Amino acid sequence: MYIDKTSNILNIKAIIAMKDRSLLMIPGPVEFEPAVLQALGAPTTSHVAPDFIEIFGSSISLMRGVFLCPSGQPFIIAGSGTLAMDMVAANLIEQGDNVLVVSTGYFGDRYEEIAKRYGAEVTCLHAAVGGIVTTDVIEAELKKKSYKFLTFTHVDTSTAVKVNPKPIGELGKKYGVLTVLDGVCSVGGEEMRQEEWGIDVAFTASQKAIGVPPGLALIVASPKAIDTWKKRKTNVTNFYSDWKNWLPIMEAYENRKPSYFATPAVNHVCALFVGLNSIIKEGVEARITRHHKFGKAFQKALSAIGLKQVPLKQEYAASTMSAPYYPEGIAASGLLPKIKQAGVIVAGGLHQQIKDKYFRIGHMGAVKESDLYATIGAVESGLHACGYSYDMGAGTIALHEELNRKE
Amino acid sequence: MYIDKTSNILNIKAIIAMKDRSLLMIPGPVEFEPAVLQALGAPTTSHVAPDFIEIFGSSISLMRGVFLCPSGQPFIIAGSGTLAMDMVAANLIEQGDNVLVVSTGYFGDRYEEIAKRYGAEVTCLHAAVGGIVTTDVIEAELKKKSYKFLTFTHVDTSTAVKVNPKPIGELGKKYGVLTVLDGVCSVGGEEMRQEEWGIDVAFTASQKAIGVPPGLALIVASPKAIDTWKKRKTNVTNFYSDWKNWLPIMEAYENRKPSYFATPAVNHVCALFVGLNSIIKEGVEARITRHHKFGKAFQKALSAIGLKQVPLKQEYAASTMSAPYYPEGIAASGLLPKIKQAGVIVAGGLHQQIKDKYFRIGHMGAVKESDLYATIGAVESGLHACGYSYDMGAGTIALHEELNRKE
Amino acid sequence: MYIDKTSNILNIKAIIAMKDRSLLMIPGPVEFEPAVLQALGAPTTSHVAPDFIEIFGSSISLMRGVFLCPSGQPFIIAGSGTLAMDMVAANLIEQGDNVLVVSTGYFGDRYEEIAKRYGAEVTCLHAAVGGIVTTDVIEAELKKKSYKFLTFTHVDTSTAVKVNPKPIGELGKKYGVLTVLDGVCSVGGEEMRQEEWGIDVAFTASQKAIGVPPGLALIVASPKAIDTWKKRKTNVTNFYSDWKNWLPIMEAYENRKPSYFATPAVNHVCALFVGLNSIIKEGVEARITRHHKFGKAFQKALSAIGLKQVPLKQEYAASTMSAPYYPEGIAASGLLPKIKQAGVIVAGGLHQQIKDKYFRIGHMGAVKESDLYATIGAVESGLHACGYSYDMGAGTIALHEELNRKE
Amino acid sequence: MYIDKTSNILNIKAIIAMKDRSLLMIPGPVEFEPAVLQALGAPTTSHVAPDFIEIFGSSISLMRGVFLCPSGQPFIIAGSGTLAMDMVAANLIEQGDNVLVVSTGYFGDRYEEIAKRYGAEVTCLHAAVGGIVTTDVIEAELKKKSYKFLTFTHVDTSTAVKVNPKPIGELGKKYGVLTVLDGVCSVGGEEMRQEEWGIDVAFTASQKAIGVPPGLALIVASPKAIDTWKKRKTNVTNFYSDWKNWLPIMEAYENRKPSYFATPAVNHVCALFVGLNSIIKEGVEARITRHHKFGKAFQKALSAIGLKQVPLKQEYAASTMSAPYYPEGIAASGLLPKIKQAGVIVAGGLHQQIKDKYFRIGHMGAVKESDLYATIGAVESGLHACGYSYDMGAGTIALHEELNRKE
Repeated sequence: MYIDKTSNILNIKAIIAMKDRSLLMIPGPVEFEPAVLQALGAPTTSHVAPDFIEIFGSSISLMRGVFLCPSGQPFIIAGSGTLAMDMVAANLIEQGDNVLVVSTGYFGDRYEEIAKRYGAEVTCLHAAVGGIVTTDVIEAELKKKSYKFLTFTHVDTSTAVKVNPKPIGELGKKYGVLTVLDGVCSVGGEEMRQEEWGIDVAFTASQKAIGVPPGLALIVASPKAIDTWKKRKTNVTNFYSDWKNWLPIMEAYENRKPSYFATPAVNHVCALFVGLNSIIKEGVEARITRHHKFGKAFQKALSAIGLKQVPLKQEYAASTMSAPYYPEGIAASGLLPKIKQAGVIVAGGLHQQIKDKYFRIGHMGAVKESDLYATIGAVESGLHACGYSYDMGAGTIALHEELNRKE
Repeated sequence: MYIDKTSNILNIKAIIAMKDRSLLMIPGPVEFEPAVLQALGAPTTSHVAPDFIEIFGSSISLMRGVFLCPSGQPFIIAGSGTLAMDMVAANLIEQGDNVLVVSTGYFGDRYEEIAKRYGAEVTCLHAAVGGIVTTDVIEAELKKKSYKFLTFTHVDTSTAVKVNPKPIGELGKKYGVLTVLDGVCSVGGEEMRQEEWGIDVAFTASQKAIGVPPGLALIVASPKAIDTWKKRKTNVTNFYSDWKNWLPIMEAYENRKPSYFATPAVNHVCALFVGLNSIIKEGVEARITRHHKFGKAFQKALSAIGLKQVPLKQEYAASTMSAPYYPEGIAASGLLPKIKQAGVIVAGGLHQQIKDKYFRIGHMGAVKESDLYATIGAVESGLHACGYSYDMGAGTIALHEELNRKE
Repeated sequence: MYIDKTSNILNIKAIIAMKDRSLLMIPGPVEFEPAVLQALGAPTTSHVAPDFIEIFGSSISLMRGVFLCPSGQPFIIAGSGTLAMDMVAANLIEQGDNVLVVSTGYFGDRYEEIAKRYGAEVTCLHAAVGGIVTTDVIEAELKKKSYKFLTFTHVDTSTAVKVNPKPIGELGKKYGVLTVLDGVCSVGGEEMRQEEWGIDVAFTASQKAIGVPPGLALIVASPKAIDTWKKRKTNVTNFYSDWKNWLPIMEAYENRKPSYFATPAVNHVCALFVGLNSIIKEGVEARITRHHKFGKAFQKALSAIGLKQVPLKQEYAASTMSAPYYPEGIAASGLLPKIKQAGVIVAGGLHQQIKDKYFRIGHMGAVKESDLYATIGAVESGLHACGYSYDMGAGTIALHEELNRKE
Repeated sequence: MYIDKTSNILNIKAIIAMKDRSLLMIPGPVEFEPAVLQALGAPTTSHVAPDFIEIFGSSISLMRGVFLCPSGQPFIIAGSGTLAMDMVAANLIEQGDNVLVVSTGYFGDRYEEIAKRYGAEVTCLHAAVGGIVTTDVIEAELKKKSYKFLTFTHVDTSTAVKVNPKPIGELGKKYGVLTVLDGVCSVGGEEMRQEEWGIDVAFTASQKAIGVPPGLALIVASPKAIDTWKKRKTNVTNFYSDWKNWLPIMEAYENRKPSYFATPAVNHVCALFVGLNSIIKEGVEARITRHHKFGKAFQKALSAIGLKQVPLKQEYAASTMSAPYYPEGIAASGLLPKIKQAGVIVAGGLHQQIKDKYFRIGHMGAVKESDLYATIGAVESGLHACGYSYDMGAGTIALHEELNRKE
């Protein structure tokens, strides 16, 4: 029978509100500003209504501000972050291209798979779990052959490992290779100066540090990337991802003219508009500083209660999320529900090699100092309930010290 | 330039959303469940639409469950909690009636004023700030003359002092006096067994432990109270508060029939319906236990960081809120904005005698353990930023200990 | 048993959204702008938060613009429109005052009852059903004795009869009597120039032409009214309605200072702020013109399909609502559900003498031309389904002619 | 001055709410039920939270009920309807496959382009504007060579032309060709019995007759289609569209297990859940009947006022939308803004050959009878204002006659 029994709506919480007041502290989706959610739930207008044209056009412009890429070409597309990864590869990789993937986890590995899908000759430099690939190693590889496309994950959501994009941007210029930054867990939170650092393409998804519910793929491509795409010898192998279809749309809306390729996700674009405005209002620099301070403090707090973390060095640790290992004898199935009971939702592991050994906490977007106290409190509560023996409150004390440190 | 002119949507936060993600921890309004807010913001229907009749009727019935008063008559009226105070007095006090007010703060004092407004001969037993009036003292007063009406504040929002209603209910029966419980800061959070304890009238406002935005006055009157009202010799001196207008409405809707006196606050009633259901779903007993545990733990946390509190003894301390004094040398103007900066909104003082010496924190309704960690964290942060010297983290540690205590 | 069976939430429509897409065309509550509903459903902030002080303060100021009363003192109070009626009487009537009530329906009659409640010597001039009381008759009565307070209903929601306030304002000045306009079904829709016309007090409720869900009583009092109140010899007989409690609050917030008497209905005030802004943005004059045009056109449409209307002359007919009689042989129980089936919710009768003989349609606030077509279409459909024989489509044709008439 | 400075909250409408109360009657997005919008705007939960797993799992199951395809495999993917078109081609077409496209407008033509993108040998049978391709012509083509894949547009949004899928399903079986129905403007509104009629793949987008804001691509594939895909000799040429990534996700969630490929559009899926439930609650058959009746009535109304329509015969006309030509001398630039002024938003032309000669009106999803009256009223108003001379009201009369016809 194909009519599901659940059509007898029983669960009021599940229906009216997906979530009660529990704090969502996973590495995306995160907690969003009420204003963003209100925009998402407002009655839909026409995708060619003057108000919407203004909102869509402005959002395209605001993307440049958030990506710090004044000359870039933004794309706002209905889809997930994975679509952003795929779209960039689809447009910039041709059969036989040499592609260098620098992988620091699940999403780096995924890019290897994507690039192969487009017929690339892929070399993948895999970091050890929790480690990075050093600039020297990357440069050594670039010397070996002529690469067209080099991609790396700014923050890999599976490991919380952060890579410094700046030297990679420099290598890109030096060796004439397009640099592609997977910013899904970084843009809007980590320092990411696309134009200044010479990153050719950066992309993200709405539900991370941008602060908008999942459903939009966001890309900014440099003039060089656009130029490379224009010089393709072959057609992009799929239709929905082809910039040929999207570029005229982005240009038209930014010039406040309606245009049609595919119906934009009207409500989502309005929510994005509110989210981008809120970033610009806070100031991109201030936002980076806040994320940096929060990330460092939260990680010190985890260390203070004896939790080792996936990133092997603090300098590899993301600002937007943390990835602590479970203490010995404590398993996800025990800990996570207890943390939830104390009011906070965190995420289990994702990286294949260590999947059941660690958990993940997002602290990005509209996150506040008080959320960090709430989260470390709930984590400590959960650990205590699981019988973990440690210096109770040490996490919070470390958080206090770090957050209140005079710089 | 990449910052679009439309980014100067001025005061976007003030408009679309009253509040950003800051945690509202004042003693009402508090943080509400998303489901409640969604019901409030849904398109309004007719006050005589079948769906609304069902919702209003059910809400009236559910009130009995929340007030633990199976024989009581509920009233749901558009207005503030002050209207509830006033309406009870307006209907039950006549010129010349002897009224005994037991005051433990601002709201007790206010009832003295209200009762006088209706021509009562009022005796007011004032507790010292932070103290209560003992049962003996009340009984001694009841022996002096024949009172018709005795009122007390279950939890006075200005002092966080809680009074035990049970012995007062007993005195009421013994001396044949109507007992009126101001439950504005208690019903839905504190233990309040209206019928079992012989409380004749209890009232509250929606925005407190009931968990619904401000705008509704909620009253449950015992058969004895209704009977006393029916035997009035004079008319109720105002129109809007007269139960003669409201009783038929409550009866009609509970019998699922439309009726008209004044247009009900349709959206608010729908939000109340969701709020009451959520209380019943949690269970009134479980909810009382949760509030009790949270209140005690939070107050221990405040003590642990050296903050004296207004209630003179722990047994007088409310479960729904706390009222700590500022440490010496620290003023509201310095501390409260710093706590806000850390992400939590708390309230200043209200009691005239100590207004500038203390602040107030609400922890009721949909409050979660993680909110307590967030709040104590923000309070400690604020104190630290103000230069207060203490054992940092001690608040959180105390919170942990108390919340994790095995009973 | 006091836990209602309906706590097993079954009805998704009733819960998440009170109403489906049906068009609410009753004379209040009406359809509201999405922006107003969004403000209502946003997370609640503190009643003393800076953003809220700004919103509340601005709303008080904006009230003067909407009531066209630059010198007036606005009051924004949690409660229904009936509270507004009651509050004005409670503050301006003292025992023994002579009060003249000009009644054109249910709400005029109600004011007679209210005024008596405050000990007034009330003379009530009752219009015939559908008629008005002429200025001559009113003046003749004013000559008989010295009145303190004269009240009339601008548009009586029970009859759709509109009274011209201007000559009554003049009589007020001539005879030194306070003129009180019940604007519940008029302010924000009908022409109402409070200051220019010398009306001393005007009041309304949020859910009518102001365009905000029910829950707020709105009053503007002239300096003369405030002065009269200040010169009272006796206390206002109830507490919640006493302007002594409210005036300092309104003044404080308008001066952007927090103050406390009763917790304001925070969400409602934010919704009102959006609603008042939307009126000012449209322009009060433009809004009056729109309502006038729509009201006239809709009433012509009703006439064109043979429906007689309660107001005995077109000049007595409100712009904000219509009150057609059922054609012979057609009853509410048959017609109204059929109109609902066609997508529009209208209201049954309210006036005691003719309750079952007519129905009521609101067309105020954010109403659009298309809503009129929808409504007349649904009414015609319903009539047809009930077997009423008439010139189908005649209503719409009349609507077209009138709406498209060149002035 | 009584107009407060804060009233210049610029562009309040554009920000808080995308749209005022104007009725959105374009052929997608359309007006959505409030319950759907509330679900969309609720605070986001984790994509692996138990509540969400239930909602996502149920939605997958409910898709079968709406597509009338008990054995089919549903896919719910973040993206636009164009993604659905592309995904089906990407998974089912391989280099060199023979593909037959039956085009009745813009979207048929688009499929020709998409199929070519995947290396297909495409034959496209183009209907004349407003016409269809007869079954005979299709069969004749199928006899010519062996086709793998035959696609047609059930209702082409550019022309409002509807094709009867049943004989095409039969041809599919007879000639062993996969039949692919573009149901973007049909599923949830038009009669579409996927399994009974032997349609191998049907797809749509959320914002059409399904009744959920744009952002989701929805596909149901028959076992035969899945089998064909499984037997591919080559890899799907792009990553995001590859069913290899999505099939395990759909299976996992339907079995109420979390799984990860790309973060689902959590809020959108919740909105879809409400939308699908609402369809099942109405009943798919009842919904088809309603759309059929409304479509026919609305088109008769357009004819009655002299507007010719793009579909050359009534039997080719869609139930979900209409496409009238402008009367001579009337242009889009004049008419559409006037219809908007009367309260209704309709769409301009899309089909290249006749783009400036016609307009488009959607009447699908949660559309009500009253919306049709509103729309024909606004269209007549607009035409009148443009100086079009005709029998005013004739549209509404025709609408009445048709809607009230006894079957």
